[in-house]
Amino acid sequence: MDNSLAPEFQFIHQYIKKLAGKGALGLTDDAALLSVEPEYELVLTADAMVENVHFFANDPVDLIAQKLLRCNLSDLAGMGAKPIGYLLTVSLPKHCFNRTWFEQFTNGLQKDQEQFHISLLGGDTTSNPSHMFFSLTAIGKVLKNKALRRNNAQAGDGIWVSGTIGDSALGLLALKNEIEDNDGFLTHRYHLPQPRLELNLTDIASAGMDISDGLVQDLRHLARESKVGAIIYTDLIPLSKPAQKLGHQYLETCLTGGDDYELLLTIPAHNETLAIQQSKKANIPLTKIGYCTEHKDSIQFIDHQKRIMQFQHTGWSHI
Amino acid sequence: MDNSLAPEFQFIHQYIKKLAGKGALGLTDDAALLSVEPEYELVLTADAMVENVHFFANDPVDLIAQKLLRCNLSDLAGMGAKPIGYLLTVSLPKHCFNRTWFEQFTNGLQKDQEQFHISLLGGDTTSNPSHMFFSLTAIGKVLKNKALRRNNAQAGDGIWVSGTIGDSALGLLALKNEIEDNDGFLTHRYHLPQPRLELNLTDIASAGMDISDGLVQDLRHLARESKVGAIIYTDLIPLSKPAQKLGHQYLETCLTGGDDYELLLTIPAHNETLAIQQSKKANIPLTKIGYCTEHKDSIQFIDHQKRIMQFQHTGWSHI
Repeated sequence: MDNSLAPEFQFIHQYIKKLAGKGALGLTDDAALLSVEPEYELVLTADAMVENVHFFANDPVDLIAQKLLRCNLSDLAGMGAKPIGYLLTVSLPKHCFNRTWFEQFTNGLQKDQEQFHISLLGGDTTSNPSHMFFSLTAIGKVLKNKALRRNNAQAGDGIWVSGTIGDSALGLLALKNEIEDNDGFLTHRYHLPQPRLELNLTDIASAGMDISDGLVQDLRHLARESKVGAIIYTDLIPLSKPAQKLGHQYLETCLTGGDDYELLLTIPAHNETLAIQQSKKANIPLTKIGYCTEHKDSIQFIDHQKRIMQFQHTGWSHI
Repeated sequence: MDNSLAPEFQFIHQYIKKLAGKGALGLTDDAALLSVEPEYELVLTADAMVENVHFFANDPVDLIAQKLLRCNLSDLAGMGAKPIGYLLTVSLPKHCFNRTWFEQFTNGLQKDQEQFHISLLGGDTTSNPSHMFFSLTAIGKVLKNKALRRNNAQAGDGIWVSGTIGDSALGLLALKNEIEDNDGFLTHRYHLPQPRLELNLTDIASAGMDISDGLVQDLRHLARESKVGAIIYTDLIPLSKPAQKLGHQYLETCLTGGDDYELLLTIPAHNETLAIQQSKKANIPLTKIGYCTEHKDSIQFIDHQKRIMQFQHTGWSHI
């Protein structure tokens, strides 16, 4: 952690230090130390979030912090890992260097640290002349050789998703005033992803990943890595009540918009009962939406009129 | 790793993928997997670099990449760790999204991966409307309970530094045309730090850290954490020939400028012979510049006229 703050910014240390866990050594050293039980392997992922690309400048600061953390935790969930901690780098324009900003930012992180039983391991704070920029590396662990991968789906496996799909993409439309979001449900889903860490499917699913770039695009990634095809029945895709209310013309947005942070899983038929048990235990809905086929590279979404959907664009890109 | 690049930017994957190591799973999954031998603990550190704050927009792209990596490797060296790999997030303005830029950037990383026997484990590439932002998390390992810490220096221990001090701060002055740098030595020291990973002093030094914010400030950090004081004789501080040539009026710059990425170590008298042996073995100069005292919070730099130096500012801050 950067100890070189000018004296007038020493308050930042006090806020950040509250987040530090045991391995962080009080953020006094060059790096953090982390021991891992020999039966585990580590799972490591890093994602960045940039003002006006991934969030709006006037988004609540605590929610920006939580989304940053949760996007990365969702990647751990996608591999069936249990989170341990994270490293965080922050580069901010001068107007953010005040107690209010840092209090809100660290309060958001603190809340999620308690919820997900993790702590800060290290990082760096710098200024820049223009935009808020955040980068977070999340560290988790998974029993050796048990991590969910993308490359092990088999033809015949069912294709399942957690939660509901598309709320976040619709939340973004609501924030742009393109649709109504009276009770704020969709906007909340956009601001605060729910990483599905409680779903423990490492011994049950054949493949898994989190849906961050849109169901259509992420399913293509999984199918390509597993060398299978897929048929999805859009009628089966779980939509929230507000998403249902918007009607079919928003289905493409739901399937290709990003930021779901739900899980996409393939589950062999003989494990379906176990999967449903896990879903009930974790209180996270799991829905079967289709199945894997042998037709490599053929990904078909069949709509309610039994037609193959054609998409304007297949997924979200931050470039 | 972000798989959601627009088709016209798919070339980026090809450049980045070349850097991926075994644990990165070809960058196809949500996260990387890493196994650690049970006798080791992991060492984790993260630092960001921002255009116009840590480097200039027209700095050579391969050197920006190498400096980013090496700053973090230097943190690992500060704790006596051996590097394993890194995660990297990159946010770039549109004008960087071309083959030339990515080829130079990844060539720089590739060169250092070979030199330091490490590989890329994961990351994320995004755009932004303004500046280049980079964040890197480096992962290393150290035998359990052997990491060099800042809090174990004892009164009486000698204070040592590796290499030469201040070249990088002078290199920055040269880049700003404030001083001459005829053979480019100082500028090169600024652009390309040398993380002192080969110095294996975990059983020899009592405390250690890397010097990134200036010797004066970093010594204060170490002394504070160890609850000791320090006396340094500036005549003993190793300066390169170009730094010596500039004369005493640049001494303060050398001692308070940042970016040395040399090691600051405290070594008990009975281990000095072993330290010198290690220095010779690694072919990295180690120089004793003073010693720790019992006078907590008293850090004195004694100059060539036996006066206590007073500093205008004590170190470098990126805020």
